Parts: sequence; C-alpha cells; structure tokens
Amino acid sequence: MNQAWWSTFIAPATWRLRWEDRLSPGLHEADIVVLGSRKPEEIPLTWIQPGTTVLNCSHDFLSGKCLHIGNMVSSGRRWLREQQHRRWRLHCLKLQPLSPVPSDIEISRGQTPKAVDVLAKEIGLLADEIEIYGKSKAKVRLSVLERLKNQADGKYVLVAGITPTPLGEGKSTVTIGLVQALTAHLNVNSFACLRQPSQGPTFGVKGGAAGGGYAQVIPMEEFNLHLTGDIHAITAANNLLAAAIDTRILHENTQTDKALYNRLVPLVNGVREFSEIQLARLKKLGINKTDPSTLTEEEVSKFARLDINPSTITWQRVLDTNDRFLRKITIGQGNTEKGYFRQAQFDIAVASEIMAVLALTDSLADMKARLGRMVVASDKSGQPVTAEDLGVTGALTVLMKDAIKPNLMQTLEGTPVFVHAGPFANIAHGNSSVLADKIALKLVGEEGFVVTEAGFGADIGMEKFFNIKCRASGLVPNVVVLVATVRALKMHGGGPSVSKLHYVKTELNGCCNLQKQIQIAQLFGVPVVVALNVFKTDTRAEIDLVCELAKRAGAFDAVPCYHWSVGGKGSVDLARAVREAASKRSQFQFLYDVQVRSIVDKIRTIAQAVYGAKDIELSPEAQAKIDRYTKQGFGNLPICMAKTHLSLSHEPDKKGVPRDFILPISDVRASIGAGFIYPLVGTMSTMPGLPTRPCFYDIDLDTETEQVKGLF
Amino acid sequence: MNQAWWSTFIAPATWRLRWEDRLSPGLHEADIVVLGSRKPEEIPLTWIQPGTTVLNCSHDFLSGKCLHIGNMVSSGRRWLREQQHRRWRLHCLKLQPLSPVPSDIEISRGQTPKAVDVLAKEIGLLADEIEIYGKSKAKVRLSVLERLKNQADGKYVLVAGITPTPLGEGKSTVTIGLVQALTAHLNVNSFACLRQPSQGPTFGVKGGAAGGGYAQVIPMEEFNLHLTGDIHAITAANNLLAAAIDTRILHENTQTDKALYNRLVPLVNGVREFSEIQLARLKKLGINKTDPSTLTEEEVSKFARLDINPSTITWQRVLDTNDRFLRKITIGQGNTEKGYFRQAQFDIAVASEIMAVLALTDSLADMKARLGRMVVASDKSGQPVTAEDLGVTGALTVLMKDAIKPNLMQTLEGTPVFVHAGPFANIAHGNSSVLADKIALKLVGEEGFVVTEAGFGADIGMEKFFNIKCRASGLVPNVVVLVATVRALKMHGGGPSVSKLHYVKTELNGCCNLQKQIQIAQLFGVPVVVALNVFKTDTRAEIDLVCELAKRAGAFDAVPCYHWSVGGKGSVDLARAVREAASKRSQFQFLYDVQVRSIVDKIRTIAQAVYGAKDIELSPEAQAKIDRYTKQGFGNLPICMAKTHLSLSHEPDKKGVPRDFILPISDVRASIGAGFIYPLVGTMSTMPGLPTRPCFYDIDLDTETEQVKGLF
Repeated sequence: MNQAWWSTFIAPATWRLRWEDRLSPGLHEADIVVLGSRKPEEIPLTWIQPGTTVLNCSHDFLSGKCLHIGNMVSSGRRWLREQQHRRWRLHCLKLQPLSPVPSDIEISRGQTPKAVDVLAKEIGLLADEIEIYGKSKAKVRLSVLERLKNQADGKYVLVAGITPTPLGEGKSTVTIGLVQALTAHLNVNSFACLRQPSQGPTFGVKGGAAGGGYAQVIPMEEFNLHLTGDIHAITAANNLLAAAIDTRILHENTQTDKALYNRLVPLVNGVREFSEIQLARLKKLGINKTDPSTLTEEEVSKFARLDINPSTITWQRVLDTNDRFLRKITIGQGNTEKGYFRQAQFDIAVASEIMAVLALTDSLADMKARLGRMVVASDKSGQPVTAEDLGVTGALTVLMKDAIKPNLMQTLEGTPVFVHAGPFANIAHGNSSVLADKIALKLVGEEGFVVTEAGFGADIGMEKFFNIKCRASGLVPNVVVLVATVRALKMHGGGPSVSKLHYVKTELNGCCNLQKQIQIAQLFGVPVVVALNVFKTDTRAEIDLVCELAKRAGAFDAVPCYHWSVGGKGSVDLARAVREAASKRSQFQFLYDVQVRSIVDKIRTIAQAVYGAKDIELSPEAQAKIDRYTKQGFGNLPICMAKTHLSLSHEPDKKGVPRDFILPISDVRASIGAGFIYPLVGTMSTMPGLPTRPCFYDIDLDTETEQVKGLF
Repeated sequence: MNQAWWSTFIAPATWRLRWEDRLSPGLHEADIVVLGSRKPEEIPLTWIQPGTTVLNCSHDFLSGKCLHIGNMVSSGRRWLREQQHRRWRLHCLKLQPLSPVPSDIEISRGQTPKAVDVLAKEIGLLADEIEIYGKSKAKVRLSVLERLKNQADGKYVLVAGITPTPLGEGKSTVTIGLVQALTAHLNVNSFACLRQPSQGPTFGVKGGAAGGGYAQVIPMEEFNLHLTGDIHAITAANNLLAAAIDTRILHENTQTDKALYNRLVPLVNGVREFSEIQLARLKKLGINKTDPSTLTEEEVSKFARLDINPSTITWQRVLDTNDRFLRKITIGQGNTEKGYFRQAQFDIAVASEIMAVLALTDSLADMKARLGRMVVASDKSGQPVTAEDLGVTGALTVLMKDAIKPNLMQTLEGTPVFVHAGPFANIAHGNSSVLADKIALKLVGEEGFVVTEAGFGADIGMEKFFNIKCRASGLVPNVVVLVATVRALKMHGGGPSVSKLHYVKTELNGCCNLQKQIQIAQLFGVPVVVALNVFKTDTRAEIDLVCELAKRAGAFDAVPCYHWSVGGKGSVDLARAVREAASKRSQFQFLYDVQVRSIVDKIRTIAQAVYGAKDIELSPEAQAKIDRYTKQGFGNLPICMAKTHLSLSHEPDKKGVPRDFILPISDVRASIGAGFIYPLVGTMSTMPGLPTRPCFYDIDLDTETEQVKGLF
C-alpha cells in the first residue's frame, strides 16, 4: 500500500481530538487512531490520549470508498509496526537535586516511576510485546526483533573503565547519567543496558548496584532484589543439571545395563518408546535405530551408560547467597547414597555457565542448543559429557524460557533501561545480554544510542566485550566511554591504598593507566571518549590535567561529568562528545582470529597486546587442559581471561602500567555452551562470603508503608 | 451520605451508554460511571465497557446542586469500595470436553485464559490492588483486606481426603471441579485456594499439580514453574539465614570480643552507632544503653557473642530441586573456613520454616515478627538463638515482601483461583495460606464460597488445618469435602498394592477408612460431604454402595463427581450438596486447648482421637526435646504431627483402620516462627531424589511456538 495516502503524527499533550474510527479487535486501545479528515481541529472534540499515533488521511479518499477503511487500518497498522525510527515523545521525569546529595534509596524513593506499560508504549513497543511484572518492570518478548528486523540499528556505545580501586569508579552511574543526558536533555532516543546484580553481595558488603546519586535505575530495590526472577531461574536450571549428574552416576553404579535400560525406556501400556532426546542420543552414538527392542546388548550398554568419571566433573551447584561454608563440601554422605560421596562446591549463581549462556544467546533456539552443548564432565574414555547426554536440555530450556526476555525498567529521569543477565566477571565475560542490546538498538532507531556497560577495567571487561560478546552478536561498537576518577589515577600514581573516604593528593602520574587503557581500546579501532567522574574533592586543575593528558594519549575527547550530584544535565557535555565520536565511521576489528590461532596463541596475544606482559607461562595442568580441549574440538573458541581486575598484571598491587611481567596461567577451563575457554590467572574465588557485620544489619522493611530501608 | 440518593447497577454487555461525568483523578478508568439522569436510554450513546459499575442518581437531585458532583462521586466511590457482596458478572470460559480426555497440558493449552486484569476486575478487585505478572498471573495486595474489613466472609469449605494410595485421590481436581461447578454452572461466587507445588518433583516423578483433566488451573505450566517467584524468595531468605549462622560462628571463633565488637559497631565518620536491630538485641539482653562507648567489657562480650552451639543447629539450607546427594553433607572444608567444618544437609525449599511462616501469617508485621522469632539453634547455655539475634529479620522480610501477596490465576472455566504457599506436608502443616483464604472470603461475599485444600488424608491435612491453620487465622470452616476413590477403598479393603494402571476388584470393605475419616471430621463439629471421584472403571453398584455407606457413617451427603472428564458441570451435584451443608450453622471446635494441655498430652490426644492409637511412646530423645521446649517456654504451641500419609497409623502398609497400635515418637522439633512443635513419627525425608528416568526426559520447549511439552 502506498504510504503517501496518509500521514502520521503523534497527538500532543495539548490536543483533544475526536476519533472517527477506533480500532478495537486485536489492537491495543488507542494504539492508532484514524482520522477521516485533513484538519483535526474541524473534528468535534472528545478525548484522545497524548502520545497516541494518529493516521490522518484525506476525507475525499475515504468517501471515495476506493479502499475499505478496515483494510486501510490493517495496512496502516502493519506499516506502523515496521516503522520505529521516530523520535520518542518521552515524558521525562523532572529532577530536583538536593545538596548534600541524599542516600541512593532516598533519591530513588523520592521519584515516582512511570507505569512501565506507559514507558513501553512511549518507546514504540506494542502491547503484545511486553509482559508486565508489577508496576515498574516488564519483560520484552523477542518477537520485537522479528517485527523490526528491517530497522537500522542505533549507535552502540560501550562504557568501560580504567583499572579501578576496590570501590569501583562509577561505570554504572556514568552509563545511566549518559542516557539521562541524551534523552532527557538532548532529546535523543537512548537506552541503557545493564547487568542484573547478584543478590548475594546486596546483603553482604556491596549494597545496591543500580547506579548512584541522581543517576540511578528506579525503583532501586526492585532492581536489586529478585527483579523478575531470572537469576532464580538460572539457579533452578543449574541445580537440576547438577542433581542429574550425581543421581545418574549413582544409578549407573548400582544397576545392571539391562535394569538401567528398562528404567530409561520403560514399558508403558505394553509399549516401549524412546523420547526425542533419547533418539538424539542414539544418533550421536551412531546407533541408527528407533525401536527399543532391536538394540544389541552392546548398544544397550552404550546407550544406558554415560560412564561419567566423577573426578572430572566441572559442573558445580550454585546459590545466589554469599555462603563461604559451601566453597568446599562433601556431598552424598547419606546412607541412601551408598557410599558414593565426593568433594564438590557451590558457586554464586551468577558464576553459572547458564548465566553466560543467557548473556550470549540471540534466540530461544540458540539458547536451547547452547544449554544442550554445555560440558559437565568427561567420561571414562575422556570424551566430553554434555547436558544433552543427560537428557535435560528441554527441561533447562523450559526453566529459562522467561529469563531470556530482557527486563525493562527506567532511570530517575524516566528514560528506558534494560536489565538483563549478569555473568560473573571473574570467570565469565561480565557483560549484559546480547539480546537486550539488540532489541534496544532497534528501538532507539538509526539516530539513537544504546549505552552498555562492561565489567571491571577496560583490559578485562572491554576486551571480553569486543572479542567474545561482539563476536557472538555480530554487533559493531561505535564508541568507547572510558570512565576515570582522580582518586583512582592518584592510586596508580603511587598514592596510598585507598580507603573509603580518605586519600591524599599526589601527582597525577597515575594517568599512565588511563593512557594505556585508551590505547587498548584503540587496538580495536574504536574511538574513545574519556568520562571523568568528578568527586567534590577534585580540583579544577586536576580535572583539566586529566582531560588534557587523555586527549594527548589519543582520546577523541575527555570531559568531566557531574550526573551523580545533578542527574543527566551534569553529563550533557559527555553526551555531546559521544554523539560526535559516534558520527565517525567505526573501524572495529577483533584482536585475534578465533579459528586460525591456537588456544595458547590467543592467550599470549591478549597477555601481550592488552596487558603488556612479556610472555605467558603455562602450568603443566593448564597445558594438559589445553591439549584436551584442543583434542575435543574446542580449540576454535574465543578466550575469556580470569584475571584480577585491580591491576593490568596478575598481581593486584601492581598499579599504574606494570611492565616486563610473565603472566602465569595456573589452569584452563571451558564453558562450551557459553562458547569460550577460560584460563585462570591465579586463583579466582567463585563464592563470596559475608563480613562480620553484613549490610543486612541495616536492611529493613517498614511494615506500614512497605518501604525498604537500608539499601544503598 | 445517604445511600438512597442513588442506585448502582452493572452495565450489561449489550449496553452502550454515554457517560455524563467520568472520573479520572486517582480513579482507574471506567471503575465508576455516574449518570445524571434516571433513564440511561435517554442519554446519547457512546461506549461504556460492559461490567462497569454505574452510579445512577436523579437529574433533579443533581441540578438542585445540593451537593457538588465531585463530592458525590468521591462518596460514591468510597461507598462502592466498601461494598463487595454482589454476584459477580463473570465471563466464564466455555469447555468442549473431548473423549477420550487428552493430556493435561493439551487441555490447558486448548483454552485461552482471560487477561488476569479482566478477571481481577470481575471479582471486585481495584486496579491499585493488583500487580500483574505476565498475562495470566497477578499478585493481590493485602490492602484489599483493609478496604473490605466490614464485609462479611463467605462460606469456608475444606477439601480433604481418605487415606490415599501413593497416586493420590484427586483432591486438587475436586477442589477445582467444585469451584467450576459453583461459579460457572450455579452462578455462585466462589474461589479455589491452592498450594504452590514444589518445582523439584515437577522434574522428578510427579509432573504438574494444577489439577487434571477438565478441572485445572491454567496455564498449567505457569502454575508449575516459577509462578511469581515465591518459592525462590523463600530459598533466598532461608539460605541467607543459614549463611549468617555459619559465618557468625566462624567470626566468633576467630576474633576477640573487642575485635568482634569493633566490627559489629564500626566507627563511621568518627561515630559509632547501633543499628535498630542491635538496639533490640541490647534490650533483649537487659542492657539499657544506646551509646556504644558505654558498654562494660562483660556487656560487650554478651552483645558480640551469640555463642551458638554448632551441634544444636536445626536450620538447614534449602533448594527447590530433588537433589538426594545433598541429604547429608559436610560443609566448611575450604582452607578459608579454618577447620570449622560440620555436618549439615539441604532440604527441599518448601520444607523451610519460612514457607510455613508464609502460610500462617496474616500481615506483613506479623510475618516480620514470626521471621524474627524463628529459632535456629541453642547457645552454649541452652538458650534459643533466633533470626533476630543474628540481625537478619529485616533482610528476610525484605526478601519476602512480595511473596506475602497471594497469586491470582484462573480455572479452565475462567473462575478465580489463589495459589499461595505450599508448606511441606511431611514436617509442616501442608495447607495453603491464611492470607489467600482471608482475601478470597471477602471477595466472594457473604453468599459466596471459598474452597481450600488440605494435604494428604484427613487424619493429617485436615487435622492440621483445624488445629493449626484455623487457630492461627481465627476462621471458622463450614463444610468438609472428603474425597474418596473406589480404587483407594479397595486398597483399604485388602486389595493388592496399587500400580498406576492396574488394580483388581475386591469387596468395598475398605469403606471403613472412609467412615473413620468422616468421624474424624465430626470430632471438630463440621459437616462432611463425601465427593466420590469417579474413574471410568468404577461400576454403578460400587458408586452407589460407597455413597450409601458414607451417609450411614454420618456424612451430610455423598455424591459422585465427573469434573475430570467434563469439567464443572460434572460436579454440579457436589456443589449443590456443599451449598446445602454450608447453610447449617457450623459447630466448629478445636480438638485440644493449646494453652492448658502439655506437649505430651496434645500429642496423645491426636494419636488417640484422630489416628485411633492405643497410646504413644516417646523415645528418650523426644522426651528430652519436649522438656527443653517446655523449659524454653514453647509448651503452649499447637502440634504438627510428621507421620506417613499412607496409613492412619505410623506403618504405611497398615491399610483400612488399624487398631491397638502404639504410636512411636522418635524425635520432636520446633518451628517457633511458624508456631508449632512437630513430633516425628518415624523418619521423614525432607529431600526427594530423582528416579533413573526423571520426567525431564519428556519436558521440552518448542522454540518456534514457545510451547512447553511433556508436563502432565
């Protein structure tokens, strides 16, 4: 249908129009209103909701009856569904910043969020594309990607940081401040994509993770607690697989081939049948049969026995709780387990490979395939045993079917945020989900911006973002925002170890770390804008010096930011700089070719080009694992380094830009479903603990007002 | 304001009215429409949504201006908010039953549920009283109880059963069939209140738990998986408390009094302050001070040390997974735990005391108090140590703040269902939540019915419903529906052990079990209607005989039910019988006085009066625990027997009505927060396992249609 037959516009807040025809069947109320006249003001007045899309077509055309109104409406609707590149008419929430800045939860509580369905509509989501969870959270269905598949993507901005202090330098806060500036102050479509935090640290030492000050996701307690249950779903799926492994070993150890087979393929109403996943296993084993009664004894044994070698099990149980007593445990000590106890451990839930799968997948079918591919152990002949072999792929997918949908929330200024996936940055890639970024890039439209955050310093989070996440997604980043603080630069310059509210001034020769991180981003061909997160103790001279040094090191621009104390308007300069940097053509390239280079070669490339190491040194164990993974056919996966984030080197106390060090690789592991090999540089704890005075001492609920207290 | 000034009515589906005045500020769209005329038909037409409440008042009255329309509207609104005793205009979903009856998930998928906000409105919930989770689930806020506090309760019906076979006799199915009959066929307001099933068995042997055949809660996969995350919240809260216990012991063992105190009450910006929960602890310890610097050395030690005796810890970790290898484990074997390993276990999440608290609480403040009261261990002097002592009450409450709101879903015929709480019936009381029942009783109005289900046979589930749940809630039950099957009665009559699809006919002298269970209900003064859940293999003569024998044993009525094969219309006779029984005045009484009788005496009363035991026999351990709990001041709690559900006695294979047995009490435990003492009659497993071929082999997700397959 010819578009020229009508025009569309958005009903402004000041208008009250009467509609000629309102579409009810199958169409969400007031999604579209059709006018049969050129001049809306000629039409008798009644209410139209501001923000409604209006299709205006000529009255002559309508009365000419050359097209039935219903057809026109349905064509119009289709046309509208495929068009998204408009500037949002977003109702932004006003901020009235106080000084001194109140606590995060007080600021969050002081702002009333928009109803999430209103926000969803404002950014062009259709009613059938969202699933509301309470008043302020919604899941977004993946069908939106199909609807908008012809829509050009927006600009893709990564927020990374310099090597941080243990307190962090405010990457989340910069991410949120930047989108607040872009959308609420420069009227540019933008989306922030954040990771969901683990609930463990929320009750331990860390408190909330929704940004801070006047740059936050609200309601911050919803962000920090449960959200829509994605991490709980991961816990359930992870632990079902763990239970399946040990139970299977027990049953194989205590039953004959025949008994096992009779139980695995039982006689039901006189008929024996393979389930679909069992047929897939037969195929994998090269047994080309579908009738259970025709298997030879040898085939029965091959089918029924996974022959898992318990000492090779790499799949751990998980909890989303900081429980240090589960770091090393012995399981299976009950009489019912007949002596098959073994040593095991619990990790924090976000360290589950399933979290990394969720973060890297791009569709339901892909997620299912990745879940099935996850390797949990080797069998006694050294072959990998997968979730698929255990028959649990479908069940894991069912448990994860809602978790795959990104969660929509909003900033303090009412701009949209996706919160989705939070893979543990110590042993996984530490970036939010590919799917959230992909959907957001469509929703903002070609002129819009998606700002996503990488965990830890740029040497870790950004490197993994480029080499792992962008490789999985196929998305091309346009700009890197590199967050720095004067506090951290002083530490790199030889200042004393930082304590929460105390540091001394030293020369800013720690800028070497900033310069090095800028150069790392440039390795990938992406322009860098340095965001200096300003603290009230920073002097003008310090701020100017850092910005000057950053530009000299090759940054496209470097600007001080004040979003923490005043919200988006404190980051307008940053937003302008990012917009300008994004207007350049991206020269993005990967650091290594994943197919051609060997595992060792890839590790060495990262160590030398990114960290500045002289070379790497593999332990015998690491070398053996590399040989095994290569033999098993996993040599062509990208590398996910598990290294301290507190130094460019493997030693946390080596600040600045360490040189001439040899990077020791103590062990190598594999997340085959997620799709990477992860070398361990030193020991990585995968289960945090609680301190003597955990922050839960301050957390409380006012049972009258239902307000949460003590989250910060 | 005088109500006579207006009348209210519901706009029928065929009407299109124009409204004179529409209330927007603060009022949900179309909650109320006010007409300024006596005759609606005189008013120019536009749309009014069917089901809208219309306030009609005289035009003369309005033009007389004796009352401002705004005031009238707001009074009218208040009046309406407080009135609920109208008959719902529920849009019921039509059923077209097939023969043979398809699988549960096929039936569930064949029906499109109403949008849950539509259902909520139909049953009189206001827009601000629900929180929608996806399309078909909503949480209901507790504020509705305050709004409707003057509304008389509906009739309260308990569904219990005879001593079941291991396959169950269909109590959930009867519960749902009964409400479908009441509301969809007899046009009586009714609500079903069900437990949320544990996800562990869903992937193990059991499959779904949403009813069956044409009497189900839909969508059944939403019911069975995650729901709105309540069990996940319980898992998180339970395990935070568990982690706090072990970490505290470690920190106390490795730090001096002073170091502990300095960490518990740290210097922040030069100031030391107690948190609220620490002030509460000081008060409990009798230390009347608020300035941390003024405590004596002895007081510091008392405050800082809980001195938990590790061998007395009763608080276990939980997972919602069938993981038998966690039944007995050793924790704390990592070097970081410095040798403080100990033996522990994981239970299935629904066995957590927090689940029992959720099921028995009646408000947020009460839940917080119960969570704080939970006893986790004794200290070295034998005093109970609580969650409150560990400083975690507020955090637990915050984690549970959404779980406390009942979950609204619907039956296959579109009638309302609450799904809320599912305490493990083996060691807890096995009944759905007090709050769901209370809210439902208000929503159905005085003439309506709330049908709630008790776990296991009447000797267990019903006894606990009366003595524990009704005692906690203060609610008075009107009718007991006792579910029986010919299959189970044959087993009680000496038929062979039942296997899934095979049993032989024997005489129905197993009716003795039914007669005994009827008599148990009569002990509590509540009339019994027997619901015979008919299977296609049952003969007319068998059905008649069971009904006849039931009535002779004192049942108010006994009727065969066919809801499984045809939906609500197959249970209309049952619904009529229940309605008639409910018209009698309830003579409800507890079995024992909880304050006056000792723990032993209460246990003996249940054993003798309910189970028919000759006496009880306490192990020395049980006696010691009873002495301890009595000394600790817990002697006045009700009793929650942990006994096999497969026999009236403690021996599962003693069918019918066992006599002359001595009930052995092997141990006694306490759930102080939930508010009961639970004697163990034999060993109770609190962690199920997976079979060799778990049902997850059949569970799958179609990644194109997003449909779940293989749940049954």
